[in-house]
Amino acid sequence: MADDAGAFSLEERITRLEQELQALRASVPRSDKTTLVLFSDDLDKALAALVIATAAASLEMDTSMFFTFWGINVLKERRVFEGKDLAHRLLECLTPAGAKDLSVSHMNMLGAGAAMLRKIMEEKNVLSVEELLSIAKEKGVQLYVCSMSMEVMGIELTELTEGVEVAGVAAYLQEARHSGITLFI
Amino acid sequence: MADDAGAFSLEERITRLEQELQALRASVPRSDKTTLVLFSDDLDKALAALVIATAAASLEMDTSMFFTFWGINVLKERRVFEGKDLAHRLLECLTPAGAKDLSVSHMNMLGAGAAMLRKIMEEKNVLSVEELLSIAKEKGVQLYVCSMSMEVMGIELTELTEGVEVAGVAAYLQEARHSGITLFI
Amino acid sequence: MADDAGAFSLEERITRLEQELQALRASVPRSDKTTLVLFSDDLDKALAALVIATAAASLEMDTSMFFTFWGINVLKERRVFEGKDLAHRLLECLTPAGAKDLSVSHMNMLGAGAAMLRKIMEEKNVLSVEELLSIAKEKGVQLYVCSMSMEVMGIELTELTEGVEVAGVAAYLQEARHSGITLFI
Repeated sequence: MADDAGAFSLEERITRLEQELQALRASVPRSDKTTLVLFSDDLDKALAALVIATAAASLEMDTSMFFTFWGINVLKERRVFEGKDLAHRLLECLTPAGAKDLSVSHMNMLGAGAAMLRKIMEEKNVLSVEELLSIAKEKGVQLYVCSMSMEVMGIELTELTEGVEVAGVAAYLQEARHSGITLFI
Repeated sequence: MADDAGAFSLEERITRLEQELQALRASVPRSDKTTLVLFSDDLDKALAALVIATAAASLEMDTSMFFTFWGINVLKERRVFEGKDLAHRLLECLTPAGAKDLSVSHMNMLGAGAAMLRKIMEEKNVLSVEELLSIAKEKGVQLYVCSMSMEVMGIELTELTEGVEVAGVAAYLQEARHSGITLFI
Repeated sequence: MADDAGAFSLEERITRLEQELQALRASVPRSDKTTLVLFSDDLDKALAALVIATAAASLEMDTSMFFTFWGINVLKERRVFEGKDLAHRLLECLTPAGAKDLSVSHMNMLGAGAAMLRKIMEEKNVLSVEELLSIAKEKGVQLYVCSMSMEVMGIELTELTEGVEVAGVAAYLQEARHSGITLFI
């Protein structure tokens, strides 16, 4: 670029620089934007994702979370069986009923591990998943739920906590491609 | 930088801007590039990775997937025992025989969970891992398999689906460092 | 931006370009910086994280690892029970005693899987977690341990390998937002 600069007037070179700077700005991720996928419904992973998201929002970062696959269970308000076919009713039985019902990824021991973790966290004044979710909403974290996962899991938007938007993978990519931080949790 | 601008002619400042813009362009990730690591051979995680990769390629993003560790099993065409030592034959027995043989990360219930998920997905017209892999190839997603993992797992390139290239961690880093989206799945 | 360029002198346009370039440089991630979260204490995931981190440092990338939640166990030097309450003593029993005691995420089979993996890796001259940790330190990888996780797990800095710094989630975000590569492992 600099090599053939002599062939152009100063004004032309400035105009080109202005255009190139604008193009570069549009084509790079921003360090003040973060986009997280929460794929898991493990209590520990949900906590990690929500702690990162709420902290990012507190630092004035533009923050989005996409809840996909098992991650949708973190958003569930209650179990719904009506109007679902056998496979989806079975799935409803076998998955957590919401944020308060999550298991830990390790040492779950039929729920004892999760109960112990919740108890320790309470003693240490660490916020719960339910509390973190509501703080995330307050701080303006965008909460998206994956449309394809809702279809596969047979879950309707009315079964989920309020303030969640349905989005596809293309919407995820549009957020993530401009984000300095992209995590899959 | 702007402070000492007065000491330079307009032409010198333009030349410096041109050089600095070029240097900046070379040193930042691009929002039209995405690089995924698939470490897992869980059916659900393989689906998530392939859905993201094929959607990114559809959006004309330059997309690469690195299959490492258990992720290699997603690329396997069949089980091969010949020419392998005892440990690797045992590993071959205990790992999936390929994309059609993957388990789910949760609720696998000796394969019932995976079977149910596959059935629901078929009913909902969600593509299978095998279909998504072939679409990924069609759309120009670069498929790399980790050389160190192949060595550790005792797997040869001939055991894997066609169109996969062997790459080391340095090659991964060269792709990922320029990518707006980097995920470990 | 280019539209109203005619209203300004060349010098003003150059000054504005210099300011904007500086602002852009400060607001984008750098492709020579990588920040990894190690959330897991699975042997295979710890290996993947450390292989990526040491390779990145070898390529002169500015590399940080944040050990959080179960990931802290990778840094443990030994089990400590003294001065801990019942729940934390129980946790100490149920979690690995350090890098040499990690299990694999799949096929652990009460430790047989981890033992087999370690044996194969030794035969293939793949470095162990312990060796990779010490190479990471040598190569200047910044090792951070999550303050909130230490509190929840009841672990003191003295229980961990040397050269680790305590950091909160805000410190993590400050590193990650400027990193071309951000992974959650």
